[in-house]
Amino acid sequence: MSSTYGDQLKLTIFGQSHGPAIGMTLDGIPAGLPVDLTLLQDFLNRRAPGNHAYSTSRREADIPEFLSGITDGYTCGAPIAAMIRNTNTRSGDYDTLKDCPRPGHADYPAQIKYGGAQDVAGGGHFSGRLTAPLCIAGGLCKQWLDAKGIRIAAHLSSVAGIHDAPEVLDPVNPDLNKINIVFPVVNTEAGEKMQEAIAAARNEGDSVGGIIECFITGVPAGLGDPMFDGIENKLAQILYGIPAVNGLEFGSGFYGTGLKGSENNDPYAIKNGSVVTTSNNSGGILGGITTGMPIVFRVAIKPTPSIAKPQQSISLSAMQEQELLIKGRHDPCIAPRAVPVVEAAAAIAIFDILLKGK
Amino acid sequence: MSSTYGDQLKLTIFGQSHGPAIGMTLDGIPAGLPVDLTLLQDFLNRRAPGNHAYSTSRREADIPEFLSGITDGYTCGAPIAAMIRNTNTRSGDYDTLKDCPRPGHADYPAQIKYGGAQDVAGGGHFSGRLTAPLCIAGGLCKQWLDAKGIRIAAHLSSVAGIHDAPEVLDPVNPDLNKINIVFPVVNTEAGEKMQEAIAAARNEGDSVGGIIECFITGVPAGLGDPMFDGIENKLAQILYGIPAVNGLEFGSGFYGTGLKGSENNDPYAIKNGSVVTTSNNSGGILGGITTGMPIVFRVAIKPTPSIAKPQQSISLSAMQEQELLIKGRHDPCIAPRAVPVVEAAAAIAIFDILLKGK
Amino acid sequence: MSSTYGDQLKLTIFGQSHGPAIGMTLDGIPAGLPVDLTLLQDFLNRRAPGNHAYSTSRREADIPEFLSGITDGYTCGAPIAAMIRNTNTRSGDYDTLKDCPRPGHADYPAQIKYGGAQDVAGGGHFSGRLTAPLCIAGGLCKQWLDAKGIRIAAHLSSVAGIHDAPEVLDPVNPDLNKINIVFPVVNTEAGEKMQEAIAAARNEGDSVGGIIECFITGVPAGLGDPMFDGIENKLAQILYGIPAVNGLEFGSGFYGTGLKGSENNDPYAIKNGSVVTTSNNSGGILGGITTGMPIVFRVAIKPTPSIAKPQQSISLSAMQEQELLIKGRHDPCIAPRAVPVVEAAAAIAIFDILLKGK
Amino acid sequence: MSSTYGDQLKLTIFGQSHGPAIGMTLDGIPAGLPVDLTLLQDFLNRRAPGNHAYSTSRREADIPEFLSGITDGYTCGAPIAAMIRNTNTRSGDYDTLKDCPRPGHADYPAQIKYGGAQDVAGGGHFSGRLTAPLCIAGGLCKQWLDAKGIRIAAHLSSVAGIHDAPEVLDPVNPDLNKINIVFPVVNTEAGEKMQEAIAAARNEGDSVGGIIECFITGVPAGLGDPMFDGIENKLAQILYGIPAVNGLEFGSGFYGTGLKGSENNDPYAIKNGSVVTTSNNSGGILGGITTGMPIVFRVAIKPTPSIAKPQQSISLSAMQEQELLIKGRHDPCIAPRAVPVVEAAAAIAIFDILLKGK
Repeated sequence: MSSTYGDQLKLTIFGQSHGPAIGMTLDGIPAGLPVDLTLLQDFLNRRAPGNHAYSTSRREADIPEFLSGITDGYTCGAPIAAMIRNTNTRSGDYDTLKDCPRPGHADYPAQIKYGGAQDVAGGGHFSGRLTAPLCIAGGLCKQWLDAKGIRIAAHLSSVAGIHDAPEVLDPVNPDLNKINIVFPVVNTEAGEKMQEAIAAARNEGDSVGGIIECFITGVPAGLGDPMFDGIENKLAQILYGIPAVNGLEFGSGFYGTGLKGSENNDPYAIKNGSVVTTSNNSGGILGGITTGMPIVFRVAIKPTPSIAKPQQSISLSAMQEQELLIKGRHDPCIAPRAVPVVEAAAAIAIFDILLKGK
Repeated sequence: MSSTYGDQLKLTIFGQSHGPAIGMTLDGIPAGLPVDLTLLQDFLNRRAPGNHAYSTSRREADIPEFLSGITDGYTCGAPIAAMIRNTNTRSGDYDTLKDCPRPGHADYPAQIKYGGAQDVAGGGHFSGRLTAPLCIAGGLCKQWLDAKGIRIAAHLSSVAGIHDAPEVLDPVNPDLNKINIVFPVVNTEAGEKMQEAIAAARNEGDSVGGIIECFITGVPAGLGDPMFDGIENKLAQILYGIPAVNGLEFGSGFYGTGLKGSENNDPYAIKNGSVVTTSNNSGGILGGITTGMPIVFRVAIKPTPSIAKPQQSISLSAMQEQELLIKGRHDPCIAPRAVPVVEAAAAIAIFDILLKGK
Repeated sequence: MSSTYGDQLKLTIFGQSHGPAIGMTLDGIPAGLPVDLTLLQDFLNRRAPGNHAYSTSRREADIPEFLSGITDGYTCGAPIAAMIRNTNTRSGDYDTLKDCPRPGHADYPAQIKYGGAQDVAGGGHFSGRLTAPLCIAGGLCKQWLDAKGIRIAAHLSSVAGIHDAPEVLDPVNPDLNKINIVFPVVNTEAGEKMQEAIAAARNEGDSVGGIIECFITGVPAGLGDPMFDGIENKLAQILYGIPAVNGLEFGSGFYGTGLKGSENNDPYAIKNGSVVTTSNNSGGILGGITTGMPIVFRVAIKPTPSIAKPQQSISLSAMQEQELLIKGRHDPCIAPRAVPVVEAAAAIAIFDILLKGK
Repeated sequence: MSSTYGDQLKLTIFGQSHGPAIGMTLDGIPAGLPVDLTLLQDFLNRRAPGNHAYSTSRREADIPEFLSGITDGYTCGAPIAAMIRNTNTRSGDYDTLKDCPRPGHADYPAQIKYGGAQDVAGGGHFSGRLTAPLCIAGGLCKQWLDAKGIRIAAHLSSVAGIHDAPEVLDPVNPDLNKINIVFPVVNTEAGEKMQEAIAAARNEGDSVGGIIECFITGVPAGLGDPMFDGIENKLAQILYGIPAVNGLEFGSGFYGTGLKGSENNDPYAIKNGSVVTTSNNSGGILGGITTGMPIVFRVAIKPTPSIAKPQQSISLSAMQEQELLIKGRHDPCIAPRAVPVVEAAAAIAIFDILLKGK
């Protein structure tokens, strides 16, 4: 059940990094929605490896083949299925990892869970490569949300502790066009420092992490549910499905715990005949339900666990400690390529919520 | 679907703050598990209002009546149902709130979602009071986990920006007995400062927030799933069901995004013939699956939105701004009473995961 | 997970026959729907024991107490919870059954599944008494469907092999008012013969079965889904939750397997500007989706397994055969009281489907 | 959500009859299970079209390509995905059907539900061709059940009203090897008459229906759940997903409603130290839970709706009646090819139930 998400829609992600193909099925999508494959490919290219100095040198075209669910450019109501064939694989790199697990990776818990039957090559089903089919589903949902005036955009809030600062996007009324397309920050100078930090980490055989901030504008008030199916719960369930995510906060989040109630509460006001709040510490959500203000959240992306430096690991067969040297190609920072993935995940969750309606 | 949680078990929370009763049903629990009602009551008393200087003066006995699922002190395999009658209600306090929503509360989005039919008294189904039935379910799961050597304990990591410091609980091997029972901190001095900050906020007619850190020890390696049903995803879905939670991080979390991969990765080692990691920045979870190390997470609890100070709101009927003065009794800080609630939520999620097994 | 049903709504049934109470929670119901408790009680009385010659002499008032979800006579959007206290129990009757399972009852498989921890008194959670909370949920859904012009009514198609014949209700345009209220048949003479057969079985210490036919009129075309969430699948999942149901067919069903395609296909026609079919062998469903014609199905109700005659059973402790004599009060035929239960189950399924919409 | 099934496992069927490919994803399968592709192909060939006198002349190889989830001949714990490309399509045959719906098909309700965006070619997602991926999933589950001593076999209980008789398989101890492999009946003479009836229907441009009886042996006692997740409910949910199924009964089913309780109850006995019943009218299920006796059920398969005879339909654009003449290739009887499909569906349901365990 691990790889299936959604209530009104059901998304299943399949594939292993070095298996025949990766892909997804997306069930429950209404019939008659237009599909713009060019726009989708543009979106997928934002995530694709090999396009940037900060990413792995593995190159995959990431062009999806649609197997079902789309007829004459429109959804037909049947489940959508799409796959991307894996072509550029180097399985030999991973041969020794089954006995000697990589720190920070799923190798060891997977070995225990699957008893050695897991596909270890390239990280198998745990690979970041599996975010490509997530982006197929999310890219489609993003198009359909866009048509309803709901826009989703994320930027690098920080990389290696360097912030996209000074405060750059107003949570009450964010100007999402300010986000740079190539390297997704608002403040170009901060972006350059981030890229320098990434390059430095690569040169050291090390890696760095980052924080991604995401905005969703145009969401009507009154969507979501109290308790376990609130907006936060649904976003959390899909966002924690992105490898390397280990933190998530909404609105003022952890910072807000140091504020007074009188500071953190968002005062109501009337603006152009509509109910608004004059601040947005709630991140657009109260009681699990949208307020009509932008949804704002941040996810923590840990430093890439695959590093070139020697690390302390163990031999599971010998049950003794052993130094590990990881070969292969890896992003020194996952965060930049994770930006469209976060947008995709958010798009899927919001589209699912929208399908349910009030 | 909002108020139902779980895969192997199905928990449904019902009730409104000032309705006839609140309660829960818990389906899918194996037969033959012992139920210690005294232990459960002790646990519920940790959450109960009116026991502490920092909590609301509303007093409810919070003694559950079990309606089904328990026979002669053991679970019988049928769904467990329990309720707590609401006795001490002051509905009059809430009369004007339907037109004039409280900042930071679900009043406005609920009004939009439910079209005015929602039960507004005492916050209705959105009330923190609904965490009492969550604690019934969680208190039972906690007993059953305890019998399997799995222990869950949380403490106040910070209140009003005051930290339970210096670093007090080792994530590799936390001594959970160090947590004070009455006011759940390790460092007594820090706890006193926190309580002073809470008292000061109360005197100002204001409120403060906090961060709760939770440890789960004794969880075997290999539980959980990749992608959308990982340990983080499942914990997130239930933890974001607790009112006032707006942040969640695992292991090194947001702080870890500023570390290098070589610093954040947890080296493997052999200790007493077992696989361990010498640090625990992963918070006991890799790829959604348990590593066998303690699960460590922190949740952000926002400052109580109900404050005595006048606030800016609006009249929905008049569509104009209006000052709001909230009457009634409220915790100046939710975090202390939320500590057992976080433990309860974690217990439910972990018990569900354990029922599934590897 | 056994006792939870639904997609848009989530129904959980709780309770054991001789436990403190039986009841249900119903989550996911829209806010603002009116609740007519008098009408609901009338509906529940149709199922209640002790009102008829053909039913058990156990008498329970079956008056539900609503614990949540209803405010001032309207649903408030929070889960609805209701319970009925068990008052008239005779647990002593069932003492020996744990070792010596009743043929045709769940005693033996329950013993294996629950390892002896199950609540055996009165059939525990397996008791037909648990259909009372099903009727609370179904009675409410029936009211709300009625307000949308969707009407559900069932009759005894046969009892003890005696048919409510000659063909009495036209599946194309059934006149549901023809169904007798006290003993639910169309043909009064057939009904009298059925009641005689039931009385005869009672006098012999035996029991008889029957077939219930249910009609749902006013359902718009285009509801439902192909494959696993079709109208048949959803109705089947809830109908097989009624104890003693062991067969279900739609439209021409098993009889239709002997027809030619040219006989079984329903020709389309235009009538009063609407699309209709001139026969209704499909039972109002094609490809899992409603055609707009009445939904027609029949359920098989097996003869009551509890009979007064001595039966061959075994002693599980001695692992040897043993004669069993069942004491206690039992319906010599379940079918008449199951008629409103079938209506209730159908109402829940259809309301759930309607909530999803096209 | 229509095309996703399962609790412990999640099966999604995708594809349209004349789209690029049909296929399935199967999530939640344990790692380390062996996959015998030759055995699977043998199973798929039983369903494949074009192999028999009684089936459509459309020929598809039905050789699945596995995209993920299987590594070195074993499941690896990741979702299994497989597809079959559609090669032999004749879309032109179906051009006029969008306006003039075929009686007995989903054309009209699909038109209403999907607003004309559905893929109408070859029946789209409603086509019987979609049972091929169901057989991939079911064929795998069947292998894994076989390894646990659980065997599933079905036969044609009747075709065109001709019964596979005299009573041929003992529900207490069925000899499943008696079932003919090529034409799945026990009584060869009856089988020949059935085939004659099918040939006669074909010659008349008509079609016939049938009843399939399925046995599942070797299932341990104590599996399943009361109420909505019983064995019957789970089997019903998947079996009603097979196109043309419109009836399902367990054990004595509809026939049993004419029996006395004393006749229908299955007496318990001890045989070779085990608990058995001396008859099996319950079909191996009591209270939703397995008794340890063979599970026995029958499904009604309606006569193929696609017939060559002219039929009365309508023009949806003109809203007037219109004669319809269906071109294309169709089975004059679906039942023979549906036999392995019923086995596949049963295998999926039982494997899911087994994964849950007691």
